Amino acid sequence: MSSDCAKEDCLGWAARDPSGFLSPYKFSRRTVGSDDVSIRITHCGVCYADVAWTRNEHGNSKYPLVPGHEIVGIVKEVGSSVQRFKVGDHVGVGTYVNSCRECEYCNDGLEVNCEKGAVFTFDGIDADGTVTKGGYSSHIVVHERYCFRIPENYPLALAAPLLCAGITVYTPMMRHKMNQPGKSLGVIGLGGLGHMAVKFGKAFGLKVAVFSTSISKKEEALSLLGADHFVLSSDQEQMKAMAKSLNFIIDTASSNHPFDPYISLLKTGGVLALVGSSEVKLSPGSLNFGMKTVSGSLTGGTKDIQEMIDFCAAQKVYPKIELIPIDYANEALERLIKRDVKYRFVIDIENSLK
Amino acid sequence: MSSDCAKEDCLGWAARDPSGFLSPYKFSRRTVGSDDVSIRITHCGVCYADVAWTRNEHGNSKYPLVPGHEIVGIVKEVGSSVQRFKVGDHVGVGTYVNSCRECEYCNDGLEVNCEKGAVFTFDGIDADGTVTKGGYSSHIVVHERYCFRIPENYPLALAAPLLCAGITVYTPMMRHKMNQPGKSLGVIGLGGLGHMAVKFGKAFGLKVAVFSTSISKKEEALSLLGADHFVLSSDQEQMKAMAKSLNFIIDTASSNHPFDPYISLLKTGGVLALVGSSEVKLSPGSLNFGMKTVSGSLTGGTKDIQEMIDFCAAQKVYPKIELIPIDYANEALERLIKRDVKYRFVIDIENSLK
Repeated sequence: MSSDCAKEDCLGWAARDPSGFLSPYKFSRRTVGSDDVSIRITHCGVCYADVAWTRNEHGNSKYPLVPGHEIVGIVKEVGSSVQRFKVGDHVGVGTYVNSCRECEYCNDGLEVNCEKGAVFTFDGIDADGTVTKGGYSSHIVVHERYCFRIPENYPLALAAPLLCAGITVYTPMMRHKMNQPGKSLGVIGLGGLGHMAVKFGKAFGLKVAVFSTSISKKEEALSLLGADHFVLSSDQEQMKAMAKSLNFIIDTASSNHPFDPYISLLKTGGVLALVGSSEVKLSPGSLNFGMKTVSGSLTGGTKDIQEMIDFCAAQKVYPKIELIPIDYANEALERLIKRDVKYRFVIDIENSLK
Repeated sequence: MSSDCAKEDCLGWAARDPSGFLSPYKFSRRTVGSDDVSIRITHCGVCYADVAWTRNEHGNSKYPLVPGHEIVGIVKEVGSSVQRFKVGDHVGVGTYVNSCRECEYCNDGLEVNCEKGAVFTFDGIDADGTVTKGGYSSHIVVHERYCFRIPENYPLALAAPLLCAGITVYTPMMRHKMNQPGKSLGVIGLGGLGHMAVKFGKAFGLKVAVFSTSISKKEEALSLLGADHFVLSSDQEQMKAMAKSLNFIIDTASSNHPFDPYISLLKTGGVLALVGSSEVKLSPGSLNFGMKTVSGSLTGGTKDIQEMIDFCAAQKVYPKIELIPIDYANEALERLIKRDVKYRFVIDIENSLK
């Protein structure tokens, strides 16, 4: 532990071992440095990363582990050099809380691609050697660079999913110029990320087709989220009817699935953006005819995050959430594994974490 | 056969069955239409497609099959409406000889991506219903749109490989802005396509690394072709030393090989362009970190082909070839299968096909 540590004034919920079971845990945050803001957390979204890390799916989790990287709250203290924030501001923190701030990517506002590696919001090793702890907690101290302004009129609970799910789909859509009205978008999977992709697609004026393995999602996709088409991906006739019709597909699926059938739905020059973590397999020639592309992406830089939040506020783009108390966190993670959520759990930290 | 057919005035070499064995074959070309040019073929490059189609590797070859789609020669007759060519001009014909000429891709000079499908130079079904026959033959009749000017100072024999091998690597390099000096290029495989990628890379002012499974290619890659680095792809230490160092990799390999090790050599935002026909397999997350891309490509449009030929003439970019007589064609295809060629066979049609 760093010598900077104050008393154990932060209450969180932590996993203690790879069972991933969460329970209350007291720890300390660093004292507020000159460039830091301290945030009273009001809400934290529940991301699949919270499952993967609490259960040590990648084999390098450090316990006790406090998950959560869709953090929103209210500034309660600022360091002497902080320019952009003042006490009382509504703010958010996403998937990373530090980076080298010197490399070409940091200089371009693409800190997530920092050459020395961005420091993730939980289970990361920060510059001072401490292990970062996430948003299933009462407050957080962050360098102002990794902190985002949330407009006053944007409900805090709804802002949480923007910080990971939102930016993860927004970044590749912008990178591949999918904010141009009239273009056609395919969305694979209708979870936290997928439903945000549909919402951005409609806000950008795109024609949106949702691909799902579950017919039960059809009504929601069309009526609730406003998609233009719903395609049951197991139905070859429905798939064929969409051949060469899409400029862009955003693939939010995290389980392995065939890729060739989706590539065949892309127009010439089309792009499939991979934001989930599935293995990719493509037959010889699948990408060559029609010069097609598969491109990966991972959340986004600070510049894009602020731009996306401002866009959502201006266009009234709101995630659909299930607001839950912290006591429900373990059950929420179980339900997330079963994909039983519409469409993002958000923990009501301010009213339930005592 | 079309009613347009003249007498059997064209001498070619054709495969008669999936053995792929080539032997002399007389057939007729269409009479010269108002927009056509008739070309006395002087040279034809030998591409792996010639192997694949003569041996029915794709299962739909139509015999007798006259291969060859790296065609150069001299105009011997032009139709009444032909604007761009006159008798005596040096010209080339590449991998396709027709397209709809109406769709957005044709209108953009990207005829290879024609919505109705470009008509390939051999074993394709042309608009008049006839089966196209390639450049292992004495002459060809082509709509002037699919015919390219070869500057007088460019040796005809050397121009042949530009029409397929050259444009296949030039197109994705231009599409991904790899003509900017100082960028770093990786080239997988040092055959007909790979050696052209190295030559374009050096002509564009790039730092070029060649990846090969065969150490025997090292000296050639560095001394003969001017590459800056040679990496034995089976040597993990050499591969690791190149980590995150390349803006772009052009993958000319046609056999299956691992992709993750190459993706790890790309810088953030880097692109691997696939121009061979290998199966793609990527581990989960391989593309996500560093927002990396795999993109397919297939020869190029007429606009790019002419631009590339003019660039090669201006910059004195010349393929390395082995000039062979038509009698050697069967042996050349066998050697091509064994990758025993430096770096492209070109058939000396004018001096050996009688």
